[in-house]
Amino acid sequence: MELSVFYAPDILPDSQTYTMNEDTSKYCIQVLRHETGDQVGLADGKGHKFTATITDDNRKRCMVSITAMETIPAVSPSRSIAIAFTKNAGRIEWFLEKATEIGIETIIPLVSHRSEKDKIKPERLNSILVSAMLQSQQFYLPVLEAPQSFEHIIKTNKTAQRFIAHCLPEQKQSLVEAIKPGEDAIILIGPEGDFTAAEIQMALQAGYIPVTLGNTRLRTETAGMVAVTLMASTLNK
Amino acid sequence: MELSVFYAPDILPDSQTYTMNEDTSKYCIQVLRHETGDQVGLADGKGHKFTATITDDNRKRCMVSITAMETIPAVSPSRSIAIAFTKNAGRIEWFLEKATEIGIETIIPLVSHRSEKDKIKPERLNSILVSAMLQSQQFYLPVLEAPQSFEHIIKTNKTAQRFIAHCLPEQKQSLVEAIKPGEDAIILIGPEGDFTAAEIQMALQAGYIPVTLGNTRLRTETAGMVAVTLMASTLNK
Repeated sequence: MELSVFYAPDILPDSQTYTMNEDTSKYCIQVLRHETGDQVGLADGKGHKFTATITDDNRKRCMVSITAMETIPAVSPSRSIAIAFTKNAGRIEWFLEKATEIGIETIIPLVSHRSEKDKIKPERLNSILVSAMLQSQQFYLPVLEAPQSFEHIIKTNKTAQRFIAHCLPEQKQSLVEAIKPGEDAIILIGPEGDFTAAEIQMALQAGYIPVTLGNTRLRTETAGMVAVTLMASTLNK
Repeated sequence: MELSVFYAPDILPDSQTYTMNEDTSKYCIQVLRHETGDQVGLADGKGHKFTATITDDNRKRCMVSITAMETIPAVSPSRSIAIAFTKNAGRIEWFLEKATEIGIETIIPLVSHRSEKDKIKPERLNSILVSAMLQSQQFYLPVLEAPQSFEHIIKTNKTAQRFIAHCLPEQKQSLVEAIKPGEDAIILIGPEGDFTAAEIQMALQAGYIPVTLGNTRLRTETAGMVAVTLMASTLNK
């Protein structure tokens, strides 16, 4: 049977013992009904996978003794996405869950001219990332950055391959054709009303490659998910 | 400005006039506040795109006069997915919306040994497909078939390229490597507990190609959405 893996954000790579926080203890002991002596897994979200034995099945402060630690190699090249957050919080939360499952390193909430939302709830969103990381059996937690303006991203981001997906009827390649395996990549996904022509111009001047994600008109969160899927399937060939 | 497009399932390619049903009339006249004289679009879900002028802005029986009809070519090759429906209805509804947006021709609810659900609500699910088709500016409604048993699909489906995605640690190619552009394709996606070893064996004997959808463990609805994305990006090259 597969080991239940719990999130342990403050464990150190050389820790010998660890005490789960109250929420995790409750989930481990009350919900999953683990007991002293059971073997469990722990993930710090930074690439370390721990195997441990429960030494005290306290439902508020579950204690474990670490028996093994393994370092999981990071995915390379790195994949980043800067995406306009939708007014409907459910849609962007869904995107965060799916992007994490499929595999993404960095997510930047993008504030552009037509963005509908420029505030986020980092705690709630991070808990979605943690659940999706554990669910999909990964050991690196995606980084959810603070919201950044379009202009700031264009001026400061130096990722090797930079893409912008937009809907204007201009010359564009498909992302799959444009992307080169083996190099770090970032893609910008605009709000429901798309990027403005001025924003697209600014990105092109900064070396961004304009791309399309297919032949249909996609919602913002769908475009984000398609971009993450295509980056995952092409970058690590 | 883009034309508002409404669903007209019972319009004929040579219709000269059309009366919207009560729900659509209400949405067109009360919600979007269209009036007599406005130009609107109609889609029959079978590849016909109509342009029309409102002749009676009745909020229960909105009447239009057709001014133009265009036949949109079908996507070729065809893409089908047979997917185990999740216990959580919201997750599969989300899948149906996203698969339609990205582009899929046929969806078959798959009843396998470990399936959690073998009943569906066709009316509710079809309305999700219609909304997603209109939203993504497409003119073909995906076909949602009645649930079929795994064995029935394996024995009767004769699609040129047949794939099965599973999680057992056996020899598998990635879907992107295995798929050939230009040929119709179907992929089978199993339930949360995966297909059984016997089911996988039965599929392989029937010529199904075993594939993986990436390096992470995906939920059923995520696997479905990734499969639809990868089929769309590879089949029509």
